[in-house]
Amino acid sequence: MNSGNRLIYLPLGGCGMFGANMYVYGWGGEGSERLIVVDCGIGFPDAESAPGVDVLIPDSAWLADRLDRLEAIFITHAHEDHVGAIGHLHPELPVPVFARRFTAAVARTKFDQLGCKGSAVHEVNPWPEFIEAGPFRVAFLPVAHSIPEAAALVIDTPVGRIVHSGDLNLDRTPVLGEAHDPERIRQAAGREVVALVCDSTNVFNPQAGRSEATVAGPVAGLIDRSTGMFAATTFASNVGRLKSLATAGIQAGRSVAVVGRSMHRILGIARDTGFLEDFPEIVPLEEARYIPRNKLMLIVTGSQGERRSVSSQLSWGNYRGFDLEPGDSFLFSARTIPGNEKSVNAIKNRLSARGVAVHSAEGSPYHASGHACRPDIEEIHELVQPEIVIPMHGENQHLREHANLARDRGFKSLFVSSGMVADISSADPRVVDHVDTGVLCLDGSTRIGRRNEVIRDRRKMAESGVIAAAIEFDLDGTAWCSGVSLKGVPSRDRSSGSLTETLRKRISSTLAERGPLDEEQDEVIERIVTRVVHSTASRSVGKKPEVMVLLTSDE
Amino acid sequence: MNSGNRLIYLPLGGCGMFGANMYVYGWGGEGSERLIVVDCGIGFPDAESAPGVDVLIPDSAWLADRLDRLEAIFITHAHEDHVGAIGHLHPELPVPVFARRFTAAVARTKFDQLGCKGSAVHEVNPWPEFIEAGPFRVAFLPVAHSIPEAAALVIDTPVGRIVHSGDLNLDRTPVLGEAHDPERIRQAAGREVVALVCDSTNVFNPQAGRSEATVAGPVAGLIDRSTGMFAATTFASNVGRLKSLATAGIQAGRSVAVVGRSMHRILGIARDTGFLEDFPEIVPLEEARYIPRNKLMLIVTGSQGERRSVSSQLSWGNYRGFDLEPGDSFLFSARTIPGNEKSVNAIKNRLSARGVAVHSAEGSPYHASGHACRPDIEEIHELVQPEIVIPMHGENQHLREHANLARDRGFKSLFVSSGMVADISSADPRVVDHVDTGVLCLDGSTRIGRRNEVIRDRRKMAESGVIAAAIEFDLDGTAWCSGVSLKGVPSRDRSSGSLTETLRKRISSTLAERGPLDEEQDEVIERIVTRVVHSTASRSVGKKPEVMVLLTSDE
Repeated sequence: MNSGNRLIYLPLGGCGMFGANMYVYGWGGEGSERLIVVDCGIGFPDAESAPGVDVLIPDSAWLADRLDRLEAIFITHAHEDHVGAIGHLHPELPVPVFARRFTAAVARTKFDQLGCKGSAVHEVNPWPEFIEAGPFRVAFLPVAHSIPEAAALVIDTPVGRIVHSGDLNLDRTPVLGEAHDPERIRQAAGREVVALVCDSTNVFNPQAGRSEATVAGPVAGLIDRSTGMFAATTFASNVGRLKSLATAGIQAGRSVAVVGRSMHRILGIARDTGFLEDFPEIVPLEEARYIPRNKLMLIVTGSQGERRSVSSQLSWGNYRGFDLEPGDSFLFSARTIPGNEKSVNAIKNRLSARGVAVHSAEGSPYHASGHACRPDIEEIHELVQPEIVIPMHGENQHLREHANLARDRGFKSLFVSSGMVADISSADPRVVDHVDTGVLCLDGSTRIGRRNEVIRDRRKMAESGVIAAAIEFDLDGTAWCSGVSLKGVPSRDRSSGSLTETLRKRISSTLAERGPLDEEQDEVIERIVTRVVHSTASRSVGKKPEVMVLLTSDE
Repeated sequence: MNSGNRLIYLPLGGCGMFGANMYVYGWGGEGSERLIVVDCGIGFPDAESAPGVDVLIPDSAWLADRLDRLEAIFITHAHEDHVGAIGHLHPELPVPVFARRFTAAVARTKFDQLGCKGSAVHEVNPWPEFIEAGPFRVAFLPVAHSIPEAAALVIDTPVGRIVHSGDLNLDRTPVLGEAHDPERIRQAAGREVVALVCDSTNVFNPQAGRSEATVAGPVAGLIDRSTGMFAATTFASNVGRLKSLATAGIQAGRSVAVVGRSMHRILGIARDTGFLEDFPEIVPLEEARYIPRNKLMLIVTGSQGERRSVSSQLSWGNYRGFDLEPGDSFLFSARTIPGNEKSVNAIKNRLSARGVAVHSAEGSPYHASGHACRPDIEEIHELVQPEIVIPMHGENQHLREHANLARDRGFKSLFVSSGMVADISSADPRVVDHVDTGVLCLDGSTRIGRRNEVIRDRRKMAESGVIAAAIEFDLDGTAWCSGVSLKGVPSRDRSSGSLTETLRKRISSTLAERGPLDEEQDEVIERIVTRVVHSTASRSVGKKPEVMVLLTSDE
């Protein structure tokens, strides 16, 4: 009945990890499906698995190889993990980009930052308006989330409707942006939904989510109880929270200043797109200096402990004349993303050491999640009544838990992690293929694979340091070592002179034994030097450092 | 009244961080106090701040410089973070070591592992027996904790009694070891207590702790509901939990096997010291192979995601013939120590991807903490009724929170982090001095400071990689570059030949411009090479790698 055509779903990022969201849908004959992409976000590397890397982006190679079949890119909302990579990847995927007004404005800044034109970004109206994209018709269904104009996508295909939830919660009274509207969702789901591809972020949170409207009150109370300066941090992109915090500050009779470039950038866009009309009054930083500490509230960047953020600098001592002292208070009004605990704790500990009262979001009334919690996810399943639930946006443990949850409640469900191609047109949807994909690392001005040897070498050098040896040749072709240097290798003798001397002599004598070298000399020397370095270093420092061999040549 | 004498308290580790516990008490004239040490534990480095480091140990330099004034070392209990460093530090601190029987047995293994004699370790009986140590009299007061024979210390000084809580909870029905006995504590506190130095680990846990006796039941239920193999992990040293888990397995009608060297080591010691009489029957691994999956339970190492642990190897696929498949279950029956979230999640995600049902400890009935929670801490304050509460065993945020808690409930309290010297003999105890201390890194066979340049260099190389250049000299003393090599530096050209060649030429030409060099040539060359490498690499890869200069010499 599908006349040999199939409907496929392929996450290229965002499943099996948080961040770098990129989802592909395709319709057509096997290997000739017409394709659309949903979201194009960045991920955040951790220093252990990807040291020195700036950001992670989805690997778009699979799509670039099928450019002739790619119809368009749709961006659900303006969070970095959904829109952040569009500027990097659009040059390879030069197709139209569709997004709602606020999201489109943010998307364009991603092009600007890389000096490209954002003319490919098209603003669209929300549901019930549809955009045609090959065999697909796509509508942006407003949902509640911690940023303006977040949308789920209603994707009509030749074999039925797909609902791609995007990021959402069930907030009926958000302080900004559209409220959760069960009727709208039920209506949109309306006719038979083939598949619900659904946010899994908070599947492990047993309590239903709270409304953003409940945050300002408790924060105002907290500010009232604090005698000194009050500082609070959250995600810059969480415009709703910025508003809640500012409102709380004003309620508590304080002047409110916003500190940090990324916050001013997003507020600028929100203002331009008309989302800041009833935003509380903000005082410029210059004025803030002259306001007594107990009358001032700072809203600052760095909720995830980012190294150069304002919260980090305040914890070290001073940011542009502002410092925190005993009696002051600091509120983390954001969830700590898994993997950032260390850096966030480091800031909390430095502030605590200074005598600053630190307040956390976890289990507090000072934070409301932007994502649907377990009971909310169940409610979404009920509203959409899909033939199958496909969990997305989470680590594998979240996807698995969400799939089990759906199954236990009588829905078909399918575990699909990044790189898995699912055929969702057949009666029993299943994974039919695997794509060799993964995230790419933006490292300085280059892009490298996450398992690239460059990353491997860095991790090894971080473990054991490195020893470099310069090799020269006698006239008869016998190699000898003319210099050795250490880095990241401890040595009992501070100058580490002794170890380098020993190494130089041992390498030379071992090479001398080998005599003149001809073909394959590079491999032979590499092998010999490595062996000598490892045996000598093992004895001297108990480790086997990385080895660099410099084969010297005259001019 | 103190005739110029004072009572000091100085944490050298364990405050401001978790791990590396070491606390000093002293009595005498300023600068001539007689000293005792409580605990001597290791800490666990994180790959980001201390890459490649095996373990952290307290810096005992301050004590070593005052060896003539050091009376003895007392070990409260046998957890690694309290006893693990005794073998490493005793050679520098050759004084008697006192501990209860089980703890002493573990302490001796620390000497054995380093090939030294553990003859300095003396077994002592618990309270009310006291050990004389200079001006101090010390008794081991049995407390409940997740290891046998844990003790608080009752320390009598010329100006009154100190209670050093050690690690403890209020478990009245532990499955192993002594129960919490409020009467015993009240009695020991008996006469006026000058200071309570108290465990802060769980000050952020609002719920009172649960008894270890409540764990086996729910775990047995979980095993009953699981159709395939059941594996569980916890800390090897948590003998009580090992017993709870094994009991649950037997209750659920399964054969139980224990997998992992560290678990067998601790069970051996527990057996030798008579703590395993009523321990459930364990089957050897060889037999376990022939037991049907749904009749088998494995208790394995790796609750913190340790890289080579059994749980990690199982998540990758296979450990000595055992593998986990869809339908199997895996239980983490231990709290994840802050900083280990990444590695623990990695294991959970790999298991989830395999279709294994993963169960976590957080907020579950499958775990009971070994540490006093907030209400328990309050109860301890009430039992001891000290003049002052001094929080210990926690990061600065925990110490601060605990100090505020005590103050809010009417007790004097003092924030003392590692390196702070507190005078607790005066009417108003306060920090009077700071000791330049910190943890040391055991790296291979060497010891280095945490802020040592070796660590700094490794972190920088992890960030940006390294470029090494070999420098030779013409007869006239002009330097030139005879070879260049990269590591951890991406290069558009896979072989990275181009960049190295460019660098070699640029360095040589820049050195040639400089002409013959004489004095300070090393510094000059270092400076020039670094400048050329940074400018060239910035253009080519957008980063400034670390630089190694090899000044070559004819043998």
